[in-house]
Amino acid sequence: MKSRGLAVENATSPLKTFEFDRREIGSHDVGLDIKYTGICHSDIHTARGEWGSVYYPLVPGHEIAGVVTSIGTAVTKFKVGDLIGVGVFVDSCRTCANCQKGLQQYCLEGMTGTYNSIERNGKNETRGGYSNNFVINEDYAVHIPANLALEGVAPLLCAGITLYSPIKHFKVGPNSKVAVMGLGGLGHMGVKFAVAMGADVTVLSHSASKEGDAKKMGAHHFVNTKEPGAFAPLKKSFDIILNTVSAEIDINEYLQCLKLDGTLVIIGLPGKPFALHAGVMLDGRRSITGSMIGGVSELQEMINFCGEKDIVSDVEVINADCANTAYDRTVASDVKYRFVIDASTF
Amino acid sequence: MKSRGLAVENATSPLKTFEFDRREIGSHDVGLDIKYTGICHSDIHTARGEWGSVYYPLVPGHEIAGVVTSIGTAVTKFKVGDLIGVGVFVDSCRTCANCQKGLQQYCLEGMTGTYNSIERNGKNETRGGYSNNFVINEDYAVHIPANLALEGVAPLLCAGITLYSPIKHFKVGPNSKVAVMGLGGLGHMGVKFAVAMGADVTVLSHSASKEGDAKKMGAHHFVNTKEPGAFAPLKKSFDIILNTVSAEIDINEYLQCLKLDGTLVIIGLPGKPFALHAGVMLDGRRSITGSMIGGVSELQEMINFCGEKDIVSDVEVINADCANTAYDRTVASDVKYRFVIDASTF
Repeated sequence: MKSRGLAVENATSPLKTFEFDRREIGSHDVGLDIKYTGICHSDIHTARGEWGSVYYPLVPGHEIAGVVTSIGTAVTKFKVGDLIGVGVFVDSCRTCANCQKGLQQYCLEGMTGTYNSIERNGKNETRGGYSNNFVINEDYAVHIPANLALEGVAPLLCAGITLYSPIKHFKVGPNSKVAVMGLGGLGHMGVKFAVAMGADVTVLSHSASKEGDAKKMGAHHFVNTKEPGAFAPLKKSFDIILNTVSAEIDINEYLQCLKLDGTLVIIGLPGKPFALHAGVMLDGRRSITGSMIGGVSELQEMINFCGEKDIVSDVEVINADCANTAYDRTVASDVKYRFVIDASTF
Repeated sequence: MKSRGLAVENATSPLKTFEFDRREIGSHDVGLDIKYTGICHSDIHTARGEWGSVYYPLVPGHEIAGVVTSIGTAVTKFKVGDLIGVGVFVDSCRTCANCQKGLQQYCLEGMTGTYNSIERNGKNETRGGYSNNFVINEDYAVHIPANLALEGVAPLLCAGITLYSPIKHFKVGPNSKVAVMGLGGLGHMGVKFAVAMGADVTVLSHSASKEGDAKKMGAHHFVNTKEPGAFAPLKKSFDIILNTVSAEIDINEYLQCLKLDGTLVIIGLPGKPFALHAGVMLDGRRSITGSMIGGVSELQEMINFCGEKDIVSDVEVINADCANTAYDRTVASDVKYRFVIDASTF
């Protein structure tokens, strides 16, 4: 299948128009026209070689919302014309203990990334969603409810599930006190989901200017962590803290804000290791853990939940020729709250 | 009540004979003759001022096994002649959410330590078990089964519960793969309890010489972590890792040995913070947590379990005049596996 999109040629090159071939539709494959594709900070880290080796030319993009245009002979899950979403991975081993549990994101053989992976047949590099179309095995794609604005759905496929999964796994509900560290592409989804689950939600941010947006999204409290003494009244007050911040912080200050048996979930990937004081963990059996996207069935569950609750990501829709500017602005945290490329402009 | 024991006068003085008064028996108090008292590494850290401010002269000791000699008028839990155990705390606020859950060790107002605390009436410093007798409110002491060797029971009151509590809390059982980091006073209790719960137990130690003892205690596997490549075959293999090591280590090497949703429990308190790589947590939703002793009811449950399973600590019984030597040997990890002072020699 002929595709047209954007690619980087090496770690320092900008995104440029790129034409390439995708595999033809196999019996279990679905072809789609991409409508919107989100810009995730991971795309930038990968494109710039900051997260290890890269298959260049690289077509990033793993927040894909589109419409099915063709189906393989054995496909049962989709039909032509369906709305369809593709997230961070397009395949996995399907047989390991984790895949069997539906946690394909933790596949013991390694999930097949939507871009910068080799397909499991060993033949082709995967190429992502900064393009006009896509091919995916039906088992790894999800349905999108028709009532949601499609441009706001695209970021759900990565930013959304990244927050939804830990919020569900750690049982956030009406009796939970939840803090969200950072109000960006990830954090704003954390606020929306935790609020929708009925929790009492506090945004912890070093940008006082974000208080208005936080409250509009439903957050009940906002704490400017740059204020002296900001942490003192928060001690032992949260059940769950969702850390979406990738900047360097003193993690112990935040851990002290957890109640007995509270959990801080790492979602943003900081460049440097945390300096973790063991005493803070012993005092109140606090935990620190990590969470990475979600499995296929949880992705579908999340999108269905969004359909019911009318939740989408807050986005700035751009044309493909603005993608490089969007990269710079994303790195500068200058986006409310996710860039989405209109795929008709590739 | 007149008491005789050992105290340190300041952070650099040795333990010396010390005579002092304990409070008289109140209506809910129990008086006991101490038979054996364990030497815990915490005693040394506290005595030497390594863990913050100290009320000198300090009488350490929070692993106390003895016999009840007198009871207050309102006491119902004990009678004269009963075997009795006292652990790390002798009181708490009794009213906070954590105390109400029976987790007095996490009392939101702070537990009253067996030594180096101020009693809740604000009057007296608490003085510990390096002495011939003790007074305690009945609610904070436990019964000791008669079938256990009393010298081996004393360390259960701190070292024992410190391992039993996380092993129970994190549901170690016949299907669990457990690793115990370090085979010392804490670690050897971890091995005994995890084996008794039916788990598959691996000892991770940098002392090859400990393999024999580990196997005698029931460990199924022993890994010398100093061997090159020792960690490679362990990746993603444990449900729980109990970290009793206080020396500096690369915690990430151990975290990588956890399966999906596995937990590393910090028990030993290292001097320096861990350098924690977030990526290791994200890969498999691994957790790192801490655990601190246990509540009164769990302490009783643990001692009852020991009675049923015939579990005690491996000890070297010493006279009081060898306590300073025992301190030096404890710091040098030269003890199998806990020093216990014969209280008749104070």
